[in-house]
Amino acid sequence: MDCFDTHTHSEGKGIHELRAMVEKGIKRVVSCAYYPVEPSGPSTLIDLFRKLTTFEMERGRKAGMVIYAAIGIHPRCIPPGYDKVLEYLEENPSTAFGEIGLETASSAEVEVLEKQLELAKKLDVPCIVHTPRKNKEVVTDKVLEVLQKVGMPEDLVVVDHANVKTAGKILKNGYWAGLTVQPGKLSKEEVKFIVDEYGSERFLLNSDTGFSDEELFAVSDTVEFLQQHFSRQDVEKLAFKNAEKFLRL
Amino acid sequence: MDCFDTHTHSEGKGIHELRAMVEKGIKRVVSCAYYPVEPSGPSTLIDLFRKLTTFEMERGRKAGMVIYAAIGIHPRCIPPGYDKVLEYLEENPSTAFGEIGLETASSAEVEVLEKQLELAKKLDVPCIVHTPRKNKEVVTDKVLEVLQKVGMPEDLVVVDHANVKTAGKILKNGYWAGLTVQPGKLSKEEVKFIVDEYGSERFLLNSDTGFSDEELFAVSDTVEFLQQHFSRQDVEKLAFKNAEKFLRL
Repeated sequence: MDCFDTHTHSEGKGIHELRAMVEKGIKRVVSCAYYPVEPSGPSTLIDLFRKLTTFEMERGRKAGMVIYAAIGIHPRCIPPGYDKVLEYLEENPSTAFGEIGLETASSAEVEVLEKQLELAKKLDVPCIVHTPRKNKEVVTDKVLEVLQKVGMPEDLVVVDHANVKTAGKILKNGYWAGLTVQPGKLSKEEVKFIVDEYGSERFLLNSDTGFSDEELFAVSDTVEFLQQHFSRQDVEKLAFKNAEKFLRL
Repeated sequence: MDCFDTHTHSEGKGIHELRAMVEKGIKRVVSCAYYPVEPSGPSTLIDLFRKLTTFEMERGRKAGMVIYAAIGIHPRCIPPGYDKVLEYLEENPSTAFGEIGLETASSAEVEVLEKQLELAKKLDVPCIVHTPRKNKEVVTDKVLEVLQKVGMPEDLVVVDHANVKTAGKILKNGYWAGLTVQPGKLSKEEVKFIVDEYGSERFLLNSDTGFSDEELFAVSDTVEFLQQHFSRQDVEKLAFKNAEKFLRL
């Protein structure tokens, strides 16, 4: 089945690896902005966004893959003078803002998240919102609080890297929940458990595959596994239909 | 035979591709700074250098590969306010400056090359100097003129992407010459022809492999081919000994 990987860092993958993903059915991916060292100035992120929305999309095309660029300030990548980055985002919104969100929920992170959400709301742009490994429940609560405060339309937000404990709460608040299948995050079996519990309607599957040894085929492997347990309609939603709806393609 | 690829953009390769190179004997590479869109400010390059000298070297280690970072302002990547980049280079020199050089030989490019060469001379840092595909002979002459003007010590410079027409002149001027084996650059047979003509003493082999479809194993394939034609001593120089000498490892 064709698959849509809704959260990758495709930059970290070579073109042969992208091709291998396409061969496994992963023909569309979102590539989220992230910089592996803390940026020292705004141009680092602005140029990263320019790279993702031009060069990286073209690299995808060469590999037979459609790459959608999500651009935004990751909580671990807040540069001094980040207002200039917000100005760029306002003038050049991409398919989605991402990944934005909270890592430690420091006041600086909350401020940057709020400003980006307000901008996304104003411009009507979907947002991919990161939650961390550490203190996931506490920080997810904080994310939900910020979303509430900004009054974000539910359809515009996926709260990503949800787990067995946070998925229900995210859905109860009306948002999409992102399920990241990767060692250290979710297993295929946990995805099945979550879909059994909450249905297939509001979940987006992804691998978060990027600069290191992450599994390339997490989404296609998971889709194959889910086909053994759920109807074709349910699996299609998880494989690509929900992604199309969220990103309004 | 163990190989040293003296000019790559390893950032464009996934970790599985880096591992495949190691399996073919390419255990050490130089990763040269280059940004795929024209940087809009100095922090883009400074953060790229920070990424290459920390995160990227670590990514190499994970793949079993030793990555040496070459940092510097590529002629196609001159940002406004590049003086700040020069300050960073002066305070944080890496194994080599690279890739620096000329693409069109515009006055801005010449100025930036000159300033970097002067800094490298002062700090005694080896330089990897790019020459373009287009107008290679004319621009190589210009590179040699700038090197002459700055009075660069011969041992500190490899003039890279040399070809059958430029190799002799580069050597006559005393510098190292870089031989890039890639479709559109040199074939293995041309490398053999050049080594037949000028000996093995002053050449560095590389692939320039990076963000796209370039061949990964260009250096190991070439070394294998050269072993059929030259002595072990000659091939070892081309495979890694010259690189060690140039980079002073």
